[in-house]
Amino acid sequence: MPKLEIPRKAVYRLSLYYRALQRLKANAVDTVSSAALSKAAGVKPTQLRKDLAYFGQLGTRGLGYSVEHLTQTLMEALGTARLQPVILVGAGHLGAALVRYRGFEKEGFEIVAAFDVDPAHAQDVAVNLTVLPMASLRDFVRERQVKMAILTVPATVAQEVTNDLVDCGIQAILNFAPTILQVPDGVVVNNVDLAIELENLSYFIR
Amino acid sequence: MPKLEIPRKAVYRLSLYYRALQRLKANAVDTVSSAALSKAAGVKPTQLRKDLAYFGQLGTRGLGYSVEHLTQTLMEALGTARLQPVILVGAGHLGAALVRYRGFEKEGFEIVAAFDVDPAHAQDVAVNLTVLPMASLRDFVRERQVKMAILTVPATVAQEVTNDLVDCGIQAILNFAPTILQVPDGVVVNNVDLAIELENLSYFIR
Repeated sequence: MPKLEIPRKAVYRLSLYYRALQRLKANAVDTVSSAALSKAAGVKPTQLRKDLAYFGQLGTRGLGYSVEHLTQTLMEALGTARLQPVILVGAGHLGAALVRYRGFEKEGFEIVAAFDVDPAHAQDVAVNLTVLPMASLRDFVRERQVKMAILTVPATVAQEVTNDLVDCGIQAILNFAPTILQVPDGVVVNNVDLAIELENLSYFIR
Repeated sequence: MPKLEIPRKAVYRLSLYYRALQRLKANAVDTVSSAALSKAAGVKPTQLRKDLAYFGQLGTRGLGYSVEHLTQTLMEALGTARLQPVILVGAGHLGAALVRYRGFEKEGFEIVAAFDVDPAHAQDVAVNLTVLPMASLRDFVRERQVKMAILTVPATVAQEVTNDLVDCGIQAILNFAPTILQVPDGVVVNNVDLAIELENLSYFIR
C-alpha cells in the first residue's frame, strides 16, 4: 500500500496510540473516546484527532474508536502486523546485547542475522543465531528481502557500512554509531545516541 | 551556576555543536564562522545563532567563534567538564551491555555502580564493577552524590524503582523501560524506546 505523507513526529505518536490501545485491550476495553485515548497516550486530544484523521473516518461520533479496529489500522500502518525481519551489523558489546534482548520480537521485529567484520572475535550473541561475515551480507539481505538494519559498528566505519547496506537494498537503519550518516532519498535513518541523551539530562542537574 | 532556561531541543543541539567543535579541534581549526559551524552540526545558521545567544556574546563579528572557548562554554553548560557519576539499575542483558560499552566515559560520564534486585543472577557486567543489591542504593547515591541514573529494569517495575531513585536524590533518569514514568518537578527523564524507533522506521519502508 502506498504510504501516507505523515510527518515523522506523527508516526512516533502512532506508536504511543498503539501502546495505549494494547493496554486498553489487556483491560478488556472495547471502545475508547478520543479524550480517553489521548490521555492514555500522553498526547493532546486535538493532536490525536489530527493524527488519526490521516487514516480517514475511524471513530464513531459519540461512541469513540473501536479498540480492535484502531489497533489493526495502526499495526498495518506501522508495518508490525507481520513479523518484520531485521539484521544487525556490528556484534560488539552493544550489538550482542541488542540481539540477546528479546524486547523487539513482541513488537513485531525479528533479528534474523547478525553480521560482523570478524565473526570469530564477535561477542557471543545468542543461542540461536550465528554471527555471519560481512561478505555474506548482500546475498542474505536479497534472499531474505530484509529492509531494516540495526547499526552498532564503530563511528569510524559507520558510513562505509551504511553505503554497503544501502547498496544491498536496506531502506531503514537504526543507527547507534555516534555519527551523522549520509543516505540517499528513500532511505531513512533514526539515530540513538546514548551519550547525547546523557548530556541532555546532565544539563538539567542542579 | 544557575541553569539558563533553554528549551529541551536547544540543549540537544548544544550537543551537536559540541561534537562538531570536537571534530574541528581534531583538525586543528582555531576559529569557525557560524555558517561553517552550523553546517558541520547539520543545523540552520539562524538556529545556531539563536541557541548560542543564550550564553551571551560568544563570537567576534567577522571572525566567528573561538573553537576552544566555545568548546569550554558548552562543556560547562552540559555538565561534562568533569566526569559525571552515573549509576545503572537493572543488570540484565541490556544493562550489562551498557556497562561494558565504554562509549560514555569519553563523553564525560562514568558508570560508578550497577544495581540489581538479584545481584547473584545479574548478567556479568564488567571486570571492574560489581553488581550491588538494591538495598544499598540509598547509601551509595547519597555518599557518592550521584545525580544521574540509567534505568534498564523491566517495564513492570520501572515506576517503583523510579520512585526509589527519586527518593534517594536522583535528578535525571535515562529510561530504557518501555513505559511512561511519573516523576516530580525537578526530575527529568529521557526515554530511549528501541521498539518505537524500529516501528517509526518500519512505517517508511516500501
